[in-house]
Amino acid sequence: MSSSPPSEDPALVRLVTSLAESARAAALTLATCGTAPKNRALAAIARLLTESTAEILAGNATDVAAARERGLAAAQIDRLTLTAPRLEALARSVEQVAALPDPVGEELAVWTRPNGLRLRKVRVPIGVIGIIYESRPNVTIDCAVLCLKSGNAAILRGGSESFHTNRALAGVIARGLAEAGLPAEAVQLIPTTDRAALNTLLKLDHLVQCLIPRGGESLIRFVVENSRIPVIKHYNGICSVYLDAQADAGLAESITVNAKVSRPGVCNAAEQLIVHADAAPALLPRVAGALAAKGVELCCDPRALALLAAKPGIRAEQLRAATPADFHTEFLGLVIAVRIVDSLEEAIATINRDGSGHTDVIVTSDEAAARRFQAAVDSSVVGWNASTRFNDGFEFGFGAEIGISTDRLHARGPMGLPELCSYKYLMDGAGQVRG
Amino acid sequence: MSSSPPSEDPALVRLVTSLAESARAAALTLATCGTAPKNRALAAIARLLTESTAEILAGNATDVAAARERGLAAAQIDRLTLTAPRLEALARSVEQVAALPDPVGEELAVWTRPNGLRLRKVRVPIGVIGIIYESRPNVTIDCAVLCLKSGNAAILRGGSESFHTNRALAGVIARGLAEAGLPAEAVQLIPTTDRAALNTLLKLDHLVQCLIPRGGESLIRFVVENSRIPVIKHYNGICSVYLDAQADAGLAESITVNAKVSRPGVCNAAEQLIVHADAAPALLPRVAGALAAKGVELCCDPRALALLAAKPGIRAEQLRAATPADFHTEFLGLVIAVRIVDSLEEAIATINRDGSGHTDVIVTSDEAAARRFQAAVDSSVVGWNASTRFNDGFEFGFGAEIGISTDRLHARGPMGLPELCSYKYLMDGAGQVRG
Repeated sequence: MSSSPPSEDPALVRLVTSLAESARAAALTLATCGTAPKNRALAAIARLLTESTAEILAGNATDVAAARERGLAAAQIDRLTLTAPRLEALARSVEQVAALPDPVGEELAVWTRPNGLRLRKVRVPIGVIGIIYESRPNVTIDCAVLCLKSGNAAILRGGSESFHTNRALAGVIARGLAEAGLPAEAVQLIPTTDRAALNTLLKLDHLVQCLIPRGGESLIRFVVENSRIPVIKHYNGICSVYLDAQADAGLAESITVNAKVSRPGVCNAAEQLIVHADAAPALLPRVAGALAAKGVELCCDPRALALLAAKPGIRAEQLRAATPADFHTEFLGLVIAVRIVDSLEEAIATINRDGSGHTDVIVTSDEAAARRFQAAVDSSVVGWNASTRFNDGFEFGFGAEIGISTDRLHARGPMGLPELCSYKYLMDGAGQVRG
Repeated sequence: MSSSPPSEDPALVRLVTSLAESARAAALTLATCGTAPKNRALAAIARLLTESTAEILAGNATDVAAARERGLAAAQIDRLTLTAPRLEALARSVEQVAALPDPVGEELAVWTRPNGLRLRKVRVPIGVIGIIYESRPNVTIDCAVLCLKSGNAAILRGGSESFHTNRALAGVIARGLAEAGLPAEAVQLIPTTDRAALNTLLKLDHLVQCLIPRGGESLIRFVVENSRIPVIKHYNGICSVYLDAQADAGLAESITVNAKVSRPGVCNAAEQLIVHADAAPALLPRVAGALAAKGVELCCDPRALALLAAKPGIRAEQLRAATPADFHTEFLGLVIAVRIVDSLEEAIATINRDGSGHTDVIVTSDEAAARRFQAAVDSSVVGWNASTRFNDGFEFGFGAEIGISTDRLHARGPMGLPELCSYKYLMDGAGQVRG
C-alpha cells in the first residue's frame, strides 16, 4: 500500500464522518443495553445467514467473477469464495459467540477508601472500533459479531475484492440488529472502497476509539502510520522451537514437526529451530529428517549444516546454508531456519533479538531450564514441551478470537471478548470533598 | 510544537539508537531481576538525592538563571525551581514507591485445558518506555522511579529549560542503579534537547514499546502524530458536576465548590456545571453564589443567566452569557460554564457530547438516577455525591500515579504501577501437539 494518502474529497469526508457519528451514538446505546438484545441480534444474524444464502452467494459470485477476470491467484479466489456449507459454518460460529458470557459489566475490583469512597472497576465496551481488512469476507461476520457481543459499535472497511459479498453480509447484520431492536448503526460497512474514505476514517480520533487492521503487514503499517487512533496490531510471527540440552528426542521431533508443518501459513507456525550444541549430534539429524520427510527445506547455520550434510532422508535440495535474512523471516511455508547455540542463555538472547515476540517454546526435561526460558523470553506465549500452534484464542479456551496481539499495551497474545473491552471506575460517595 | 520534523542528523540517529538498544538490553535484565535489587536501587536513589543536594541545586541554579534571562513567567520559574525541602520531599516519594508491592510476576489467571495444557497469565513489564516531558524536573525522578519499580527501562527526554537539573538527577539515578548492581542503562536521559534526537526516538518502534508524554496537549499531539509507538495519553479534563432534580442543596454546594476551586489548574477540576431545570430555581443561586464568593466567573446559558441575574453575592463582572466555546473549554482557572437541562438523559447526552471522558459526577439522593448516570456517562471515573477531584492515583489508594489516561485501550483513569505493565502467557505441556 502507498503511504501517501490522496487528497480529501469533501463529500466522502462528510459521508464517513456522519457514519462515524451515528456509530458513536449506537455505541452509547449498546454499552448499556444489557446482554439479551445483543444475543437476540446474534441469533437473528445466524438464522438470516442461512435464510439469505441465495442473496449472499449472488453477491459473492459477482466478486468471484471479477476476481477471475482480474487474474487473481487460485488461493486468493478460494479465500474469497463463499459456499452454502461455508455460510452454514459461519452461522454456527455466530451462535457460538452468542453462547459466550457477556464480558460487559463484570466487576474487576471493588474497594472502599478510608474516607468512605466506594470504588468499583467495571468492564465496559471500548466504544467505536474500526476494522480494516482485506479480501476474506468471513471477517465481516466474525468481527461484527465479536464487536456486537462485547458492546462495541463496528465500522467495517473491507477490501474491494469482496465488496458485493460484504454488502450482502452487512444487510444481513442490519436486519438482525433491527429484529432485536438495536440500532442498525451498531455495525456499518463503509459503502465504498475509495481509499479517500479510509483516510477519512483514520483521522476521526474524536469518534473512533480503536482500529483493528486484519491483514498483511503492509496493511497494518499503513493504518499505524496514517492514524492517531490506537491500533491493535498483530504483526508477523517469527516463532522458535528451542531444543535444550535435556530435550526428549520423541517430544523434540513431534513438537517441531507439528509447529512447522501442521499449518505452515499461519502466524503461530515455527520458522526457527534452535538446538543446544550438546544435544545437536543426537537430536538434530532425527528432527531434521522428520521435517524433511514432510517436505520442509532446512536453511542451516554452518554447524547445523555440517551435522546434516549427506544424512539419509534429507534430499540435497532440502538443505542449504542460511543467509542472514533467513533468521528474520516469516516463511509462511515449508521452510525452517536452523541454528545451533552453546547455552540456554544464548538461545534466549537469540530469540529476544531475532524473534517477533509472538510464540516461542522450549523442549526439555529440565524444569529449571524451562522456567528460566519462560521468564526470560519476551514473547506473548512462552511454552514448555508443547507446540507453538497453541497460541490461539480457541485453543486457550476463550471461545472466540479477534486476533493475536504482538503489542505490549492493552492486550498481548490471543484476544477474546474481554480484550475487546475497556473499563471505567464507578465512585460512590456521601458528599466527600478533597482537602 | 511544529508538526514537521526537521531532517535527520546521522550522528544523533546513531546516538539515540544506541541508547535505545542498551535500554532494551537493560529492560530484559530488569524484567527478571526480582524485587530486591529494584528496591535497593530505589533506596539508594532516595539517599543520594539528599546527599547530592549541592550538586543538584547547582545544576538547577544554572537552569533557573537561564530561565530568568529568557524572561520566563514566574509560575514557570517556580515549577522549574528545586530547593532542599523539595528534594527532601522527592526523596520521601521515592521511598514510598520502594515500599509499594512489586507488580511484576503476579499471576493474573491460571487454568488447565482439557488436553492438559496448563496456562498462566503473568504480569510482566512493558519493556522500554520513552517519557517525553517539559519543564518540571521532578518528572525525571517520578517517572524513572515508577518505571524502575515496574521493571521497565526508561528513556527520558526532558525539556531544554531543565537540562542541567535533569543531568544532575540522571547522575543520581545512575549511581543508585550501580549501587544495586543493576545496569545504568535502565534509566537514561537523552543527552541533548535537539529536536532531531526526539524525532529519532519516536521512530524506534522496534526498540521502544510505549511512549508517555507528560505535558500540555500540543506536546501529546506532537508525539502521537510523529510516532508509530503506542502512546499513553492524558489529554485535557473537561469535567462536569451535574446537579440532579433530587440533589441535596448542601452536597450540591460543597461538591461543586470543591470540584471547581480546590485546585483549578488540574485536569480533574470541574469546568462545567449542569443543573436539572426542576432543581435550578432553588439550587443554582445558592451554588453559584458560593462559587462567586470564591472568585469564580460564571458563563451561563440563557436560562441559567436569567436565574442568576442581579442575585446578591454575584458581582456583575462574574456573570456573563456563555459562548459556544465555553462548553468545550478546559479553563484551568476560576471560570465555570453553567447550563440547565430538562432531564437526566439530557445531562448524560450533554456530557457524552461535550465532555472529555475524564471525570463526571452526579449529585442526587435518587439512587436510580445515580446508577443510570454512572452506567451511561462514558468517562474514566463517574461519581455519585463526591468531588471530581478524587480521580487521582493517590486518592484511589494506588500509592503512585504516572498519569490519568483518557484512552480506552490499555489503561483508563489513574495509572499506578500495574498499569505500567503488560502480561504474557506461560504454557506448560507434556508434549501436546495440535491436531
